[in-house]
Amino acid sequence: MTAPVARRGRPRSEDADGRILEAARELLFECGYDGFAMDEVAARGRVAKTTLYRRWPTKDHLLVALVARMQDEVPVADTGHLRQDLVDYLTAVADGLNRMRAVGRRGNPEDRSAGVVAELVAAAGRHPDVGEAVRALFARRNILPLALLDRARERGELRPGADSEAVFDQLAGALYYRLLVTGAPIGAEYVERLVDQVLAGAAGHTTPHPERTRS
Amino acid sequence: MTAPVARRGRPRSEDADGRILEAARELLFECGYDGFAMDEVAARGRVAKTTLYRRWPTKDHLLVALVARMQDEVPVADTGHLRQDLVDYLTAVADGLNRMRAVGRRGNPEDRSAGVVAELVAAAGRHPDVGEAVRALFARRNILPLALLDRARERGELRPGADSEAVFDQLAGALYYRLLVTGAPIGAEYVERLVDQVLAGAAGHTTPHPERTRS
Repeated sequence: MTAPVARRGRPRSEDADGRILEAARELLFECGYDGFAMDEVAARGRVAKTTLYRRWPTKDHLLVALVARMQDEVPVADTGHLRQDLVDYLTAVADGLNRMRAVGRRGNPEDRSAGVVAELVAAAGRHPDVGEAVRALFARRNILPLALLDRARERGELRPGADSEAVFDQLAGALYYRLLVTGAPIGAEYVERLVDQVLAGAAGHTTPHPERTRS
Repeated sequence: MTAPVARRGRPRSEDADGRILEAARELLFECGYDGFAMDEVAARGRVAKTTLYRRWPTKDHLLVALVARMQDEVPVADTGHLRQDLVDYLTAVADGLNRMRAVGRRGNPEDRSAGVVAELVAAAGRHPDVGEAVRALFARRNILPLALLDRARERGELRPGADSEAVFDQLAGALYYRLLVTGAPIGAEYVERLVDQVLAGAAGHTTPHPERTRS
Protein backbone atom coordinates (compact mmCIF):
# COMPACT_ATOMS: atom_id res chain seq x y z
CA MET A 1 0.00 0.00 0.00
CA THR A 2 2.91 2.39 0.49
CA ALA A 3 4.31 2.36 -3.06
CA PRO A 4 1.48 4.27 -4.78
CA VAL A 5 1.39 6.79 -1.97
CA ALA A 6 5.13 7.28 -2.23
CA ARG A 7 4.85 7.68 -5.99
CA ARG A 8 1.96 10.11 -5.68
CA GLY A 9 3.97 11.98 -3.05
CA ARG A 10 6.95 12.40 -5.35
CA PRO A 11 5.85 14.47 -8.35
CA ARG A 12 8.44 16.87 -9.69
CA SER A 13 7.99 19.78 -7.32
CA GLU A 14 7.44 22.34 -10.10
CA ASP A 15 4.44 20.27 -11.22
CA ALA A 16 2.97 20.39 -7.72
CA ASP A 17 3.81 24.10 -7.45
CA GLY A 18 2.19 24.76 -10.80
CA ARG A 19 -0.98 22.90 -9.84
CA ILE A 20 -1.13 24.71 -6.50
CA LEU A 21 -0.70 28.13 -8.10
CA GLU A 22 -3.31 27.46 -10.77
CA ALA A 23 -5.74 26.22 -8.10
CA ALA A 24 -4.95 29.30 -6.01
CA ARG A 25 -5.60 31.64 -8.92
CA GLU A 26 -8.94 29.96 -9.69
CA LEU A 27 -10.03 30.02 -6.05
CA LEU A 28 -8.99 33.63 -5.50
CA PHE A 29 -11.01 34.91 -8.45
CA GLU A 30 -13.95 32.77 -7.42
CA CYS A 31 -14.05 33.45 -3.69
CA GLY A 32 -11.96 36.57 -3.00
CA TYR A 33 -9.45 37.00 -0.19
CA ASP A 34 -11.74 36.21 2.71
CA GLY A 35 -13.07 33.05 1.10
CA PHE A 36 -9.62 31.84 0.07
CA ALA A 37 -8.98 28.65 2.07
CA MET A 38 -5.71 26.71 1.98
CA ASP A 39 -7.46 23.33 2.37
CA GLU A 40 -9.53 24.04 -0.72
CA VAL A 41 -6.36 24.95 -2.65
CA ALA A 42 -4.82 21.60 -1.66
CA ALA A 43 -7.96 19.74 -2.75
CA ARG A 44 -8.22 21.53 -6.11
CA GLY A 45 -4.49 21.26 -6.77
CA ARG A 46 -4.49 17.55 -5.85
CA VAL A 47 -1.63 17.88 -3.40
CA ALA A 48 -1.36 16.79 0.22
CA LYS A 49 -2.01 19.57 2.71
CA THR A 50 1.43 18.90 4.21
CA THR A 51 2.99 19.53 0.77
CA LEU A 52 1.12 22.80 0.46
CA TYR A 53 1.93 24.06 3.95
CA ARG A 54 5.59 23.00 3.72
CA ARG A 55 5.91 25.17 0.61
CA TRP A 56 3.70 28.10 1.71
CA PRO A 57 2.94 28.27 5.43
CA THR A 58 0.01 30.71 5.18
CA LYS A 59 -2.40 31.90 2.53
CA ASP A 60 -0.57 35.23 2.41
CA HIS A 61 2.69 33.49 1.47
CA LEU A 62 0.87 31.59 -1.25
CA LEU A 63 -0.84 34.72 -2.58
CA VAL A 64 2.50 36.52 -2.84
CA ALA A 65 3.76 33.65 -5.01
CA LEU A 66 0.61 33.91 -7.10
CA VAL A 67 1.09 37.66 -7.56
CA ALA A 68 4.70 37.01 -8.60
CA ARG A 69 3.48 34.59 -11.26
CA MET A 70 0.83 37.04 -12.47
CA GLN A 71 3.41 39.83 -12.66
CA ASP A 72 5.72 37.63 -14.71
CA GLU A 73 2.90 37.30 -17.23
CA VAL A 74 2.85 41.08 -17.80
CA PRO A 75 5.03 41.73 -20.87
CA VAL A 76 7.66 44.49 -20.82
CA ALA A 77 8.41 45.09 -24.49
CA ASP A 78 11.16 47.39 -25.72
CA THR A 79 10.30 48.38 -29.28
CA GLY A 80 12.42 51.52 -29.22
CA HIS A 81 9.38 53.79 -28.89
CA LEU A 82 9.25 54.63 -25.20
CA ARG A 83 5.85 56.29 -24.97
CA GLN A 84 4.07 53.34 -26.54
CA ASP A 85 6.13 50.81 -24.59
CA LEU A 86 5.22 52.55 -21.33
CA VAL A 87 1.54 52.80 -22.26
CA ASP A 88 1.44 49.10 -23.16
CA TYR A 89 3.26 48.00 -20.03
CA LEU A 90 1.28 50.19 -17.64
CA THR A 91 -2.02 49.28 -19.28
CA ALA A 92 -1.20 45.63 -18.62
CA VAL A 93 -0.26 46.45 -15.00
CA ALA A 94 -3.51 48.42 -14.57
CA ASP A 95 -5.52 45.57 -16.11
CA GLY A 96 -4.03 43.17 -13.58
CA LEU A 97 -4.77 45.55 -10.70
CA ASN A 98 -8.32 46.08 -11.95
CA ARG A 99 -8.89 42.32 -12.07
CA MET A 100 -7.58 42.02 -8.51
CA ARG A 101 -9.77 44.95 -7.49
CA ALA A 102 -12.85 43.29 -8.99
CA VAL A 103 -12.22 40.23 -6.81
CA GLY A 104 -12.92 42.32 -3.75
CA ARG A 105 -16.12 43.82 -5.09
CA ARG A 106 -18.34 40.92 -4.15
CA GLY A 107 -20.59 41.56 -7.13
CA ASN A 108 -21.02 45.29 -6.53
CA PRO A 109 -19.61 47.18 -9.52
CA GLU A 110 -19.91 50.50 -7.64
CA ASP A 111 -17.55 49.30 -4.95
CA ARG A 112 -14.27 51.20 -5.39
CA SER A 113 -12.27 49.30 -2.77
CA ALA A 114 -8.88 47.85 -3.61
CA GLY A 115 -9.81 44.32 -2.51
CA VAL A 116 -7.11 41.68 -2.63
CA VAL A 117 -4.25 44.09 -3.30
CA ALA A 118 -5.05 45.98 -0.10
CA GLU A 119 -5.19 42.73 1.87
CA LEU A 120 -1.78 41.75 0.55
CA VAL A 121 -0.33 45.14 1.42
CA ALA A 122 -1.63 44.71 4.96
CA ALA A 123 -0.30 41.14 5.15
CA ALA A 124 3.10 42.45 4.05
CA GLY A 125 2.98 44.92 6.94
CA ARG A 126 1.81 42.33 9.44
CA HIS A 127 4.21 39.47 8.72
CA PRO A 128 7.89 40.43 8.28
CA ASP A 129 8.64 37.45 6.01
CA VAL A 130 5.64 38.20 3.77
CA GLY A 131 6.80 41.81 3.62
CA GLU A 132 10.31 40.73 2.63
CA ALA A 133 8.87 38.44 -0.06
CA VAL A 134 6.68 41.23 -1.48
CA ARG A 135 9.56 43.72 -1.53
CA ALA A 136 11.92 41.16 -3.12
CA LEU A 137 9.28 40.40 -5.73
CA PHE A 138 8.89 44.05 -6.73
CA ALA A 139 12.66 44.67 -6.62
CA ARG A 140 13.18 41.75 -9.02
CA ARG A 141 10.26 42.59 -11.27
CA ASN A 142 10.87 46.35 -11.49
CA ILE A 143 14.34 45.75 -12.96
CA LEU A 144 12.64 45.35 -16.35
CA PRO A 145 10.78 48.70 -16.60
CA LEU A 146 13.77 50.47 -15.01
CA ALA A 147 16.04 49.03 -17.74
CA LEU A 148 13.51 50.17 -20.34
CA LEU A 149 13.84 53.74 -19.03
CA ASP A 150 17.66 53.51 -18.87
CA ARG A 151 17.84 52.37 -22.50
CA ALA A 152 15.48 55.16 -23.60
CA ARG A 153 17.78 57.66 -21.92
CA GLU A 154 20.80 56.12 -23.68
CA ARG A 155 19.19 56.52 -27.07
CA GLY A 156 18.08 60.08 -26.28
CA GLU A 157 14.34 59.61 -25.75
CA LEU A 158 14.74 60.70 -22.13
CA ARG A 159 16.75 63.75 -21.16
CA PRO A 160 20.28 62.95 -19.90
CA GLY A 161 19.48 63.82 -16.27
CA ALA A 162 16.22 61.86 -16.09
CA ASP A 163 16.04 59.84 -12.87
CA SER A 164 14.75 56.38 -13.91
CA GLU A 165 13.81 55.35 -10.39
CA ALA A 166 11.81 58.52 -9.69
CA VAL A 167 10.17 58.30 -13.13
CA PHE A 168 9.15 54.71 -12.51
CA ASP A 169 7.84 55.55 -9.01
CA GLN A 170 5.69 58.28 -10.57
CA LEU A 171 4.17 55.91 -13.09
CA ALA A 172 3.58 52.83 -10.95
CA GLY A 173 2.95 54.97 -7.88
CA ALA A 174 0.10 56.91 -9.49
CA LEU A 175 -1.67 53.64 -10.38
CA TYR A 176 -1.28 52.15 -6.91
CA TYR A 177 -2.21 55.44 -5.21
CA ARG A 178 -5.49 55.57 -7.12
CA LEU A 179 -6.14 51.88 -6.47
CA LEU A 180 -5.25 51.83 -2.79
CA VAL A 181 -5.92 55.35 -1.51
CA THR A 182 -8.23 57.55 -3.56
CA GLY A 183 -10.20 54.77 -5.29
CA ALA A 184 -10.06 56.65 -8.61
CA PRO A 185 -10.31 54.55 -11.78
CA ILE A 186 -7.17 53.36 -13.57
CA GLY A 187 -8.30 52.69 -17.11
CA ALA A 188 -6.58 52.96 -20.48
CA GLU A 189 -7.43 56.67 -20.80
CA TYR A 190 -5.80 57.51 -17.48
CA VAL A 191 -2.66 55.51 -18.32
CA GLU A 192 -2.13 57.61 -21.48
CA ARG A 193 -2.69 60.87 -19.60
CA LEU A 194 -0.23 59.75 -16.94
CA VAL A 195 2.51 58.69 -19.36
CA ASP A 196 2.19 61.94 -21.34
CA GLN A 197 2.33 64.02 -18.18
CA VAL A 198 5.36 62.13 -16.82
CA LEU A 199 7.24 62.47 -20.10
CA ALA A 200 6.42 66.15 -20.65
CA GLY A 201 6.91 67.23 -17.05
CA ALA A 202 4.81 69.70 -15.12
CA ALA A 203 6.99 72.76 -15.61
CA GLY A 204 8.14 71.96 -19.11
CA HIS A 205 11.73 72.92 -18.25
CA THR A 206 14.55 70.56 -19.06
CA THR A 207 16.66 71.60 -16.08
CA PRO A 208 14.61 72.12 -12.92
CA HIS A 209 16.12 74.47 -10.42
CA PRO A 210 14.63 76.51 -7.59
CA GLU A 211 15.85 79.76 -9.08
CA ARG A 212 14.43 78.80 -12.40
CA THR A 213 10.87 78.30 -11.17
CA ARG A 214 11.10 81.50 -9.11
CA SER A 215 12.12 83.70 -12.01
CA MET B 1 -27.57 60.75 42.07
CA THR B 2 -28.57 61.23 38.44
CA ALA B 3 -27.69 64.93 38.08
CA PRO B 4 -23.87 64.60 38.16
CA VAL B 5 -24.01 61.66 35.76
CA ALA B 6 -26.23 63.62 33.41
CA ARG B 7 -23.85 66.56 33.59
CA ARG B 8 -20.81 64.36 33.01
CA GLY B 9 -22.62 62.70 30.12
CA ARG B 10 -23.39 66.02 28.40
CA PRO B 11 -20.07 67.63 27.49
CA ARG B 12 -20.04 69.51 24.21
CA SER B 13 -19.54 66.72 21.71
CA GLU B 14 -16.44 68.29 20.14
CA ASP B 15 -14.79 68.14 23.55
CA ALA B 16 -15.51 64.41 23.82
CA ASP B 17 -14.41 63.92 20.20
CA GLY B 18 -11.23 65.86 20.85
CA ARG B 19 -10.42 63.83 23.96
CA ILE B 20 -11.13 60.58 22.14
CA LEU B 21 -8.93 61.53 19.18
CA GLU B 22 -6.05 62.62 21.41
CA ALA B 23 -6.33 59.39 23.40
CA ALA B 24 -6.44 57.43 20.12
CA ARG B 25 -3.32 59.17 18.81
CA GLU B 26 -1.43 58.49 22.02
CA LEU B 27 -2.49 54.85 22.14
CA LEU B 28 -1.73 54.23 18.47
CA PHE B 29 1.84 55.51 18.75
CA GLU B 30 2.32 53.59 21.96
CA CYS B 31 0.81 50.23 21.01
CA GLY B 32 0.52 50.09 17.23
CA TYR B 33 -2.46 48.86 15.25
CA ASP B 34 -2.73 45.40 16.80
CA GLY B 35 -2.53 46.72 20.34
CA PHE B 36 -5.02 49.51 19.70
CA ALA B 37 -8.07 48.71 21.85
CA MET B 38 -11.29 50.73 21.84
CA ASP B 39 -11.92 50.17 25.55
CA GLU B 40 -8.53 51.65 26.36
CA VAL B 41 -9.32 54.68 24.18
CA ALA B 42 -12.56 55.22 26.12
CA ALA B 43 -10.71 54.95 29.44
CA ARG B 44 -7.92 57.32 28.45
CA GLY B 45 -10.34 59.79 26.83
CA ARG B 46 -12.64 59.70 29.90
CA VAL B 47 -15.74 58.95 27.84
CA ALA B 48 -18.33 56.21 28.22
CA LYS B 49 -17.79 53.25 25.91
CA THR B 50 -21.30 53.80 24.53
CA THR B 51 -20.32 57.38 23.59
CA LEU B 52 -17.22 56.12 21.81
CA TYR B 53 -18.96 53.31 19.92
CA ARG B 54 -21.93 55.52 18.95
CA ARG B 55 -19.49 57.91 17.32
CA TRP B 56 -17.08 55.35 15.81
CA PRO B 57 -18.37 51.78 15.66
CA THR B 58 -14.95 50.11 15.11
CA LYS B 59 -11.32 50.94 15.64
CA ASP B 60 -10.91 51.33 11.89
CA HIS B 61 -13.57 54.06 11.80
CA LEU B 62 -11.84 55.84 14.66
CA LEU B 63 -8.41 55.54 13.03
CA VAL B 64 -9.74 57.08 9.80
CA ALA B 65 -10.93 60.07 11.85
CA LEU B 66 -7.51 60.26 13.49
CA VAL B 67 -5.75 60.20 10.10
CA ALA B 68 -8.09 62.99 8.92
CA ARG B 69 -7.06 65.09 11.90
CA MET B 70 -3.37 64.36 11.32
CA GLN B 71 -3.71 65.29 7.64
CA ASP B 72 -5.37 68.56 8.55
CA GLU B 73 -2.26 69.38 10.59
CA VAL B 74 -0.06 69.16 7.46
CA PRO B 75 0.33 72.72 6.14
CA VAL B 76 -0.19 73.46 2.44
CA ALA B 77 1.46 76.85 1.96
CA ASP B 78 1.30 78.83 -1.27
CA THR B 79 4.23 81.24 -1.24
CA GLY B 80 4.25 81.66 -5.00
CA HIS B 81 7.35 79.46 -5.41
CA LEU B 82 5.95 76.12 -6.49
CA ARG B 83 9.03 73.93 -6.19
CA GLN B 84 9.64 74.93 -2.58
CA ASP B 85 5.93 74.76 -1.71
CA LEU B 86 5.76 71.22 -3.10
CA VAL B 87 8.94 70.15 -1.32
CA ASP B 88 7.66 71.56 1.99
CA TYR B 89 4.22 70.00 1.62
CA LEU B 90 5.46 66.57 0.51
CA THR B 91 8.18 66.51 3.16
CA ALA B 92 5.46 67.03 5.77
CA VAL B 93 3.35 64.26 4.17
CA ALA B 94 6.38 61.93 4.13
CA ASP B 95 7.18 62.78 7.76
CA GLY B 96 3.65 61.80 8.74
CA LEU B 97 3.86 58.55 6.78
CA ASN B 98 7.26 57.77 8.28
CA ARG B 99 5.87 58.29 11.78
CA MET B 100 2.98 55.96 10.96
CA ARG B 101 5.43 53.45 9.50
CA ALA B 102 7.54 53.54 12.65
CA VAL B 103 4.45 52.56 14.69
CA GLY B 104 4.41 49.22 12.93
CA ARG B 105 8.08 48.50 13.46
CA ARG B 106 7.74 47.16 16.97
CA GLY B 107 11.18 48.41 17.91
CA ASN B 108 13.01 47.04 14.89
CA PRO B 109 14.48 49.96 12.90
CA GLU B 110 15.36 47.60 10.02
CA ASP B 111 11.73 46.68 9.47
CA ARG B 112 10.58 48.30 6.24
CA SER B 113 6.90 47.43 6.54
CA ALA B 114 4.23 50.08 6.12
CA GLY B 115 2.58 49.33 9.46
CA VAL B 116 -0.55 51.24 10.36
CA VAL B 117 -1.02 52.78 6.91
CA ALA B 118 -1.16 49.32 5.35
CA GLU B 119 -3.69 48.17 7.95
CA LEU B 120 -5.90 51.17 7.19
CA VAL B 121 -5.69 50.51 3.46
CA ALA B 122 -6.81 46.93 4.10
CA ALA B 123 -9.61 48.07 6.42
CA ALA B 124 -10.78 50.44 3.69
CA GLY B 125 -10.97 47.47 1.34
CA ARG B 126 -12.71 45.24 3.84
CA HIS B 127 -15.44 47.58 5.13
CA PRO B 128 -17.32 49.58 2.47
CA ASP B 129 -18.13 52.44 4.85
CA VAL B 130 -14.52 52.73 6.02
CA GLY B 131 -13.48 52.75 2.37
CA GLU B 132 -15.95 55.53 1.59
CA ALA B 133 -14.72 57.51 4.58
CA VAL B 134 -11.07 57.15 3.50
CA ARG B 135 -11.83 58.15 -0.08
CA ALA B 136 -13.92 61.13 1.05
CA LEU B 137 -11.10 62.18 3.36
CA PHE B 138 -8.52 62.18 0.57
CA ALA B 139 -10.91 63.83 -1.90
CA ARG B 140 -11.48 66.65 0.58
CA ARG B 141 -7.85 66.98 1.63
CA ASN B 142 -6.34 66.78 -1.86
CA ILE B 143 -8.30 69.86 -2.96
CA LEU B 144 -5.55 71.97 -1.35
CA PRO B 145 -2.48 70.66 -3.22
CA LEU B 146 -4.52 70.46 -6.45
CA ALA B 147 -5.41 74.14 -6.08
CA LEU B 148 -1.73 74.91 -5.44
CA LEU B 149 -0.88 73.31 -8.80
CA ASP B 150 -3.74 75.10 -10.58
CA ARG B 151 -2.59 78.48 -9.29
CA ALA B 152 1.03 77.73 -10.31
CA ARG B 153 -0.22 77.00 -13.83
CA GLU B 154 -2.19 80.26 -13.87
CA ARG B 155 0.89 82.28 -12.98
CA GLY B 156 3.01 80.39 -15.53
CA GLU B 157 5.14 78.18 -13.28
CA LEU B 158 3.52 75.10 -14.83
CA ARG B 159 3.12 74.69 -18.57
CA PRO B 160 -0.40 75.52 -19.84
CA GLY B 161 -1.29 71.88 -20.60
CA ALA B 162 -0.05 70.48 -17.27
CA ASP B 163 -2.57 68.01 -15.81
CA SER B 164 -2.84 68.90 -12.10
CA GLU B 165 -4.52 65.64 -11.15
CA ALA B 166 -1.90 63.48 -12.89
CA VAL B 167 0.90 65.64 -11.47
CA PHE B 168 -0.47 65.26 -7.96
CA ASP B 169 -0.94 61.49 -8.41
CA GLN B 170 2.72 61.26 -9.45
CA LEU B 171 3.91 63.09 -6.35
CA ALA B 172 1.71 61.54 -3.68
CA GLY B 173 1.63 58.21 -5.53
CA ALA B 174 5.42 57.82 -5.52
CA LEU B 175 5.51 58.31 -1.74
CA TYR B 176 2.70 55.83 -1.06
CA TYR B 177 4.13 53.33 -3.57
CA ARG B 178 7.47 53.30 -1.79
CA LEU B 179 5.78 53.12 1.61
CA LEU B 180 3.23 50.43 0.80
CA VAL B 181 4.78 48.37 -2.00
CA THR B 182 8.54 48.56 -2.46
CA GLY B 183 9.44 49.57 1.10
CA ALA B 184 11.98 52.12 -0.18
CA PRO B 185 12.75 55.08 2.08
CA ILE B 186 10.87 58.37 1.69
CA GLY B 187 13.15 60.94 3.24
CA ALA B 188 13.81 64.61 2.51
CA GLU B 189 16.41 63.77 -0.16
CA TYR B 190 13.96 61.60 -2.08
CA VAL B 191 11.21 64.23 -1.91
CA GLU B 192 13.49 66.79 -3.59
CA ARG B 193 14.53 64.31 -6.30
CA LEU B 194 10.89 63.48 -6.92
CA VAL B 195 9.68 67.07 -7.15
CA ASP B 196 12.52 68.02 -9.51
CA GLN B 197 11.83 65.00 -11.73
CA VAL B 198 8.07 65.68 -11.83
CA LEU B 199 8.59 69.34 -12.72
CA ALA B 200 11.27 68.73 -15.35
CA GLY B 201 9.63 65.70 -16.94
CA ALA B 202 11.32 62.58 -18.19
CA ALA B 203 11.55 63.51 -21.86
CA GLY B 204 12.18 67.19 -21.34
CA HIS B 205 9.69 68.07 -24.08
CA THR B 206 6.96 70.59 -23.43
CA THR B 207 4.45 68.92 -25.76
CA PRO B 208 4.46 65.15 -25.50
CA HIS B 209 3.36 63.32 -28.59
CA PRO B 210 4.02 59.80 -29.86
CA GLU B 211 5.64 61.06 -33.07
CA ARG B 212 7.78 63.44 -31.07
CA THR B 213 9.33 60.75 -28.86
CA ARG B 214 9.86 58.52 -31.89
CA SER B 215 11.79 61.07 -33.89
